[in-house]
Amino acid sequence: MDKDIYYMEKALTLARKGVGYTSPNPMVGAVVVRDDKIVGEGHHRYYGGPHAEVYALEEAGEKAFGSTLYVNLEPCSHYGKTPPCVFKIIESGVKRVVISMVDPNPRVSGKGIEMLKKAGIEVTVGVLEEKARNLNEVFIKNITNRMPFVYLKMAQTLDGYLATSSGDSRWVTGKKARQYVHRLRHRVDAILVGIGTVLKDDPRLTTRLSDGKGKDSIKIVLDSKLKIPLTANILNQENDAPVIIVCGHRVDSHKKKSLKQLKSVEVLSLDLNEYGQIPIKELLINLNKKGISSLLVEGGGRVNYSFLKEGFVDKMLFFIAPKLLGGSDGVSVFDGKGAEVMAKVKKLKKYKIEEIGEDILITGTL
Amino acid sequence: MDKDIYYMEKALTLARKGVGYTSPNPMVGAVVVRDDKIVGEGHHRYYGGPHAEVYALEEAGEKAFGSTLYVNLEPCSHYGKTPPCVFKIIESGVKRVVISMVDPNPRVSGKGIEMLKKAGIEVTVGVLEEKARNLNEVFIKNITNRMPFVYLKMAQTLDGYLATSSGDSRWVTGKKARQYVHRLRHRVDAILVGIGTVLKDDPRLTTRLSDGKGKDSIKIVLDSKLKIPLTANILNQENDAPVIIVCGHRVDSHKKKSLKQLKSVEVLSLDLNEYGQIPIKELLINLNKKGISSLLVEGGGRVNYSFLKEGFVDKMLFFIAPKLLGGSDGVSVFDGKGAEVMAKVKKLKKYKIEEIGEDILITGTL
Repeated sequence: MDKDIYYMEKALTLARKGVGYTSPNPMVGAVVVRDDKIVGEGHHRYYGGPHAEVYALEEAGEKAFGSTLYVNLEPCSHYGKTPPCVFKIIESGVKRVVISMVDPNPRVSGKGIEMLKKAGIEVTVGVLEEKARNLNEVFIKNITNRMPFVYLKMAQTLDGYLATSSGDSRWVTGKKARQYVHRLRHRVDAILVGIGTVLKDDPRLTTRLSDGKGKDSIKIVLDSKLKIPLTANILNQENDAPVIIVCGHRVDSHKKKSLKQLKSVEVLSLDLNEYGQIPIKELLINLNKKGISSLLVEGGGRVNYSFLKEGFVDKMLFFIAPKLLGGSDGVSVFDGKGAEVMAKVKKLKKYKIEEIGEDILITGTL
Repeated sequence: MDKDIYYMEKALTLARKGVGYTSPNPMVGAVVVRDDKIVGEGHHRYYGGPHAEVYALEEAGEKAFGSTLYVNLEPCSHYGKTPPCVFKIIESGVKRVVISMVDPNPRVSGKGIEMLKKAGIEVTVGVLEEKARNLNEVFIKNITNRMPFVYLKMAQTLDGYLATSSGDSRWVTGKKARQYVHRLRHRVDAILVGIGTVLKDDPRLTTRLSDGKGKDSIKIVLDSKLKIPLTANILNQENDAPVIIVCGHRVDSHKKKSLKQLKSVEVLSLDLNEYGQIPIKELLINLNKKGISSLLVEGGGRVNYSFLKEGFVDKMLFFIAPKLLGGSDGVSVFDGKGAEVMAKVKKLKKYKIEEIGEDILITGTL
């Protein structure tokens, strides 16, 4: 069993290489082992490209015969963009297949395993399952829910403020925490901010990884009244990453037209809710239709509050700087009406604490 | 060296047994080791009682000859409540003395070590020094500063609130965190709250340790206008722990008189500051004169703010529950005007993160 864990770690490490490029496909890695030696490895590199098993088995060639294949997701049994991997596995003469998790797609879940077993291949399921589930949390959510996976990220002081009373938020957290956020931006399909953040900080929301590479994700601005200036940094960038400005229907049509004429800029008009705000559910349904499978929400307090209140947060990331605003007049993490009694506050489940440079990262679900 | 650490850990463990009882003396433990065996051990049990070295050497008897003595504080060289320990050590024939830290009292610091060396005893200083300093942080502060050591304790949600908008704070943290607070109460000489907390929660502020024992510390209420009801729980308790109500000079003299007539209750009148609040510095000077060497401040937001702002916090303890108020209308950790720009926020130094049951404890200094 220890060997199974060892090789599955390898497969997961390979899978992670696809981060940022496989969406809406999952990240998958595969390792072929014979006589306790790795004879082939591969990972799913980009959406629509060959699956991890194909790369690994091709590298193994004849050595795949009698081998064990490690893969973090149940091999596919259906014709999609590529032919089913199970055929390839059976043909290659693999003796045993070790899998972290079954396919979360209810239409195919378990079918690949069944076909392998019918072909006389020994199958082990559940090795490093939790890690595999975390890695593909976005994919799992999309398959089962048809909504983007929403990450809510905060950079706050220990006493709970995103910014001072003057709106200053540069910087709450240190360099390493900010680099971590850039890796998150690379990982997701889209990044979302409120118009307040655009007007105050004029961010670019580009992905700057420490090694220079990185994918620029789609940028989304919640701007119900279309207040964004045409000169905003986010609207005037070199890269081709689309920018979606989300507003209500009653907005300046001239402004709307001017925005639409800008390169890579799209304006999405939605019916506002009773508070005159963008309704989060409708927004997410629309984004999902555009093929956005994961979304990183980067605050402001009003936007954070809307997502939390409407219940559309899949994972929260609190970057906590060991600093104290030392007062009660800063910009709160969630700007709105909170729980009235302690028994009704929202609880963070399965939370994890990490130190990221000089800051603390607390991750959890609700 | 590894052996030195091993035995010094033993000495520190012994020292900790004195927690809550030795103030204003330090907590000290001693171990006598001969031929790699412990032949004597002891700790300072209560203020004015024999020192740790005396117990340990007496238990060792003749076996102390040629032995090594481990003690977490430089042995005393002066006549206090007991005769100097260095004489006892020299007489006992100890060959080597291992010490964590020199005596922080500038009047005697290093003198004990000097006398031991002159008597031909080998002396090693600095083993587990940081641990020893942490253990006796209160003693060190008192000796060098003549002010009580102030612990500021918070129990807050992840988004920075002590209570909901309705004032509800029961409970923010879980059972284990609350037990930890009772151990803190046992450890300090006095516990301080604001009148707001008394009026809202009517706490007893007793020390309830899980094993039943525990010292009830002095209770202090900051109550500038003497609003405390005579029926408050804190004023009507079985135990004899004194209660000090701190107020201004312009208060109802009848009320003051009635309070003074209650068992164990004292009223301390101070000149209020320009904001009509109790001045923290004068308060601490007064408490020090009363022999209070350590103080646990248990909030409210206003009281926390005053201590932080006036700069009299030695150690902060943030108990953070993995919960979200989810709004901006709760009771802030620090209730007042905060830093105006991020560059001016207060930074927590040398902070430490622990998980206490379901909660997170972040400890640090400013």
